[in-house]
Amino acid sequence: MDHKKLFENIVAKRSFLCVGLDSEIEKIPAFLHKESDPVFEFNKRIIDATHKYSVAYKPNVAFYECYGARGWNTLEKTVDYIKTNYPDIFVIADAKRGDIGNTSKMYAKAFLENMPFDAITVAPYMGEDSVTPFLSVKDKWVVLLALTSNKGADDFQYHNDDGIKLFERVLSVSRKWGTVNNIMYVVGATRAEMLKDIRKIVPEHFLLVPGVGAQGGSLEEVARYGMNSHCGLLVNSSRGIIFADNSENFDKVAGEKALEVQLEMEKYLSERNLI
Amino acid sequence: MDHKKLFENIVAKRSFLCVGLDSEIEKIPAFLHKESDPVFEFNKRIIDATHKYSVAYKPNVAFYECYGARGWNTLEKTVDYIKTNYPDIFVIADAKRGDIGNTSKMYAKAFLENMPFDAITVAPYMGEDSVTPFLSVKDKWVVLLALTSNKGADDFQYHNDDGIKLFERVLSVSRKWGTVNNIMYVVGATRAEMLKDIRKIVPEHFLLVPGVGAQGGSLEEVARYGMNSHCGLLVNSSRGIIFADNSENFDKVAGEKALEVQLEMEKYLSERNLI
Repeated sequence: MDHKKLFENIVAKRSFLCVGLDSEIEKIPAFLHKESDPVFEFNKRIIDATHKYSVAYKPNVAFYECYGARGWNTLEKTVDYIKTNYPDIFVIADAKRGDIGNTSKMYAKAFLENMPFDAITVAPYMGEDSVTPFLSVKDKWVVLLALTSNKGADDFQYHNDDGIKLFERVLSVSRKWGTVNNIMYVVGATRAEMLKDIRKIVPEHFLLVPGVGAQGGSLEEVARYGMNSHCGLLVNSSRGIIFADNSENFDKVAGEKALEVQLEMEKYLSERNLI
Repeated sequence: MDHKKLFENIVAKRSFLCVGLDSEIEKIPAFLHKESDPVFEFNKRIIDATHKYSVAYKPNVAFYECYGARGWNTLEKTVDYIKTNYPDIFVIADAKRGDIGNTSKMYAKAFLENMPFDAITVAPYMGEDSVTPFLSVKDKWVVLLALTSNKGADDFQYHNDDGIKLFERVLSVSRKWGTVNNIMYVVGATRAEMLKDIRKIVPEHFLLVPGVGAQGGSLEEVARYGMNSHCGLLVNSSRGIIFADNSENFDKVAGEKALEVQLEMEKYLSERNLI
């Protein structure tokens, strides 16, 4: 899926919502625990209830990995389910990988070749040869960490070399490794005020924005400072949608929450004359 | 396992060798392919042949993950095999994880609680709250990336804020998050000349040093600049040991290669009067 197709999907759905599948087994409704694979059943129902309002899903790999081989099986089934039933939806493995070249190549194989993910989140610390193996997989994307939504972002990401902060250097250096069709950046919604500066460095790239909802970021601010002429945003919401309700109606409520977000997004897209 | 016990093991074995289990299925001897789990059979024989000369093993998680649920099963069996048969050996999950707090907690659970790894490699980009969930698991270690062995290390790790390079800041800031008993650092052998400066910041911490062998680093230089009064080094070798031979005698040859490295290490330990 390229940049243009992603924007077409956003226009068609009047939404730039990414639903985060942080599907912690302790938090899913109790009645699902009788299923042979409760997390998969949960994901399936969440996906069926929210796909009309979302252009992307983002399984958080840690929440699968913590169940070992069984959890990996659930992850595989989840991405297969999305791609079989809703092939236009962009699916991101939120895995934060990155290692020396021969090892990143194996991670790329795991997520972008053996599983049908469209994209994987990657940490930039180890530099170019830790990122390019992912970029060399045809039609797949890297979502590179730039400025994250957590408190710890302050520890190193603002490290300032002659007026250039580390996250700014990550943006300006790494954008040469790929194109607007295979690299996007994580910018936390809790740092929305920084989006104006970030857009000076990467005006055309898509940004994946976590931190709206549970982490306190504002969708309105993200749209105001981050949106470009082809939207250029995927805004993630996880807990606020998937754990909005804990009853047998959890999927219906998740759908309603996703619709609420979609309607707000539609307003911002409309204000920018993008739809 | 604490710092003191790790040094006792080093003295007992006269070695600070860590064997990297980057067990790529395409590279293991062909005759093992008839086994139901060829990679596990390969690892088992490598471990049995090299354990006398090694104080640590480091499975590279990417090489298991790329086989999905099946690969995870192999990884689980491998760490169980080491801890059951050679409980004193320190086992590092080379996973380069790191995410917001609730997610790092899940990664910690995956590797340090559900599997009996002693340690996990972690990327520092996301700062304190991405690292501390690993440090809060009792008796377990974080191996934090500081200065890596690959070319891409130059892209961001030397980013210089008022005379302090990023990797130096990672060292000086993060050492306050834990103790010498639960945090060590990755410093690539290809950057051995930097070890002198690094030892000024973290004189007491253990360093995990990859890059000797296939990547061109020198063990002699690493020992000269990096060794402290309790050794303070785990030097990793992967391909140079595990893929030294491709015949039915691969394990015997791997044992001989590990012995060669151990003898060289014994020399450096002896020169420093540590044994």
